Amino acid sequence: MPAPRRSKTAPRGGIDLGGTKIQAAIVTVKGEVIGDAKLPTPTKGGPEDVARQMAEALTQAAGGADLASDSLGGIGVGSPGDVDEATGVVSEARNLPGWDGSFELGPWLENALGAPVRLGNDVDVATNAEFELGAGKPYRSLLGVFWGTGVGGGLILDGKRWLGRGAAGEIGHMVVKKGGARCPCGRRGCMEAYAGRAAMEAKARRDIDRGTKTDLFKLMEKHGRDRLVSSIWQRALDHGDEYTEKLLDRAVKALGAGIASAVNLLDVEAVIIGGGIGVRLGEPYAEKIKERMHRHLFVDQRPPAVHVAALGDFGGAIGASLLFSAPE
Amino acid sequence: MPAPRRSKTAPRGGIDLGGTKIQAAIVTVKGEVIGDAKLPTPTKGGPEDVARQMAEALTQAAGGADLASDSLGGIGVGSPGDVDEATGVVSEARNLPGWDGSFELGPWLENALGAPVRLGNDVDVATNAEFELGAGKPYRSLLGVFWGTGVGGGLILDGKRWLGRGAAGEIGHMVVKKGGARCPCGRRGCMEAYAGRAAMEAKARRDIDRGTKTDLFKLMEKHGRDRLVSSIWQRALDHGDEYTEKLLDRAVKALGAGIASAVNLLDVEAVIIGGGIGVRLGEPYAEKIKERMHRHLFVDQRPPAVHVAALGDFGGAIGASLLFSAPE
Repeated sequence: MPAPRRSKTAPRGGIDLGGTKIQAAIVTVKGEVIGDAKLPTPTKGGPEDVARQMAEALTQAAGGADLASDSLGGIGVGSPGDVDEATGVVSEARNLPGWDGSFELGPWLENALGAPVRLGNDVDVATNAEFELGAGKPYRSLLGVFWGTGVGGGLILDGKRWLGRGAAGEIGHMVVKKGGARCPCGRRGCMEAYAGRAAMEAKARRDIDRGTKTDLFKLMEKHGRDRLVSSIWQRALDHGDEYTEKLLDRAVKALGAGIASAVNLLDVEAVIIGGGIGVRLGEPYAEKIKERMHRHLFVDQRPPAVHVAALGDFGGAIGASLLFSAPE
Repeated sequence: MPAPRRSKTAPRGGIDLGGTKIQAAIVTVKGEVIGDAKLPTPTKGGPEDVARQMAEALTQAAGGADLASDSLGGIGVGSPGDVDEATGVVSEARNLPGWDGSFELGPWLENALGAPVRLGNDVDVATNAEFELGAGKPYRSLLGVFWGTGVGGGLILDGKRWLGRGAAGEIGHMVVKKGGARCPCGRRGCMEAYAGRAAMEAKARRDIDRGTKTDLFKLMEKHGRDRLVSSIWQRALDHGDEYTEKLLDRAVKALGAGIASAVNLLDVEAVIIGGGIGVRLGEPYAEKIKERMHRHLFVDQRPPAVHVAALGDFGGAIGASLLFSAPE
């Protein structure tokens, strides 16, 4: 039997599976968010514990819209790791507990929630959300840059997601300085080696051991955190912490060079800056990145537009729901 | 009246307009080359002198196939500079004499040759030639890297040329070392600053002033050249010139990093190495570039195929003729 009626008009669900939190949203076919929920990602157990928490988040979000999950037109999932869109299997999601192997996340969720499930790469669905409903709406081609723990990239070319052979968009591993800093990926000179939150935190810890002065870790402890999450960087900036400013400027130079390289190659209309740090630092830093990018643009009289992601924190979940309006 | 009959079955002409030579080819609808000609690019005069030489080259090529130019199904032109495909105007082709401004190259040639003319960017048409008829035939997505005086790039994504807003493919100006060497374009750290023939020649001249020993310029003079054309680099390698080897290895490192950046971003199936130096140095250097690229690939268990351009010297002219088989 062809697509049941509910798939055409019923609201869709979206789940954004992150390393620290799981976000779910219920979105109408017109793109309106009518329910949402946020739960912490389990730090112990294995893939099934994570999947159970995802189902719980989605159920809570649906409940907020007075809906049962099995009445949804479909549920999209934005996942880290190696995502097989055809089979719903997620492999090597190393930021998640016990997920070094493979897990049939799609089928598990379909069974638990009673609605069809589609999976996509977390960065790709977030890029698509900005394209369909956010800062990318006016454009047919764009580069999404998700500046967070790592630096992820998503591409829309001629109105469609570009996935290459499945692994496109690794903008964080474009080389901005051959022979340069060591990246968390093990290679040298990647953009992420300078701009990723994890790489910046590791550098800050090394520099402090060498006598550098900064309030970054005092602020982290004061706010009960065990990592330099994006809000801590913002607070350190607000406190006038010079080291933080210097480290972020170093990141901005790498982002500017890497994004310019991508623009020189692809000549897209727009660049959307998202991700935990990108959204938190907002316009002032988007402006700095734009200025650095401009220095490296080959066709510099016609730079792409640069915007901060407009959908904010729930962009990933909203984008995941759109896996059910995009053509297969 | 709709498209005349000749446009469907008649052979097409192609002209590759280069800084030192103009090449023309007559190509059947099946991709067979039935006539060709090569003439030097005028070094004096202005755009009209260049256009006259182009018409002469095409007429000679057609004559070799016993055809008159006005019986051709169309004539494609691969041009440097800023190419307006819609109007046939070429602007700022700075390697050509007196061509700092704009010239209606397309209309001029249509009038002189009596057949419809279409223009494209030289690197894009050469990439397309490799895709349709050369080393890129087995693939749906590829990156063409034209390693010559500069380093140009052409993209085929999902079986179609990707032009962005008209200026895509500037792979030579991807940043491989922020704050690095000065590029002929005026910016710092571009791939071309390390790998372009012109940049390498300028560096060799500076290094010799500082006492470096190399036979490069002796070989140049011996063979009656005034520039380090690609054959001179090959001869110097054959002579075991250590400086040449070192300079080319430096270029290879930059090419490896930049191409890997492009592959990390786009995840294309194949990379085709063309251009004067790329074709001249051939497989051994394609292999070196591949090895360097591999070090920077994020998904390194599935590298793209790397091939030398298969159509050789006439690839540009053949690709230009294909402007009349591609959909508009």
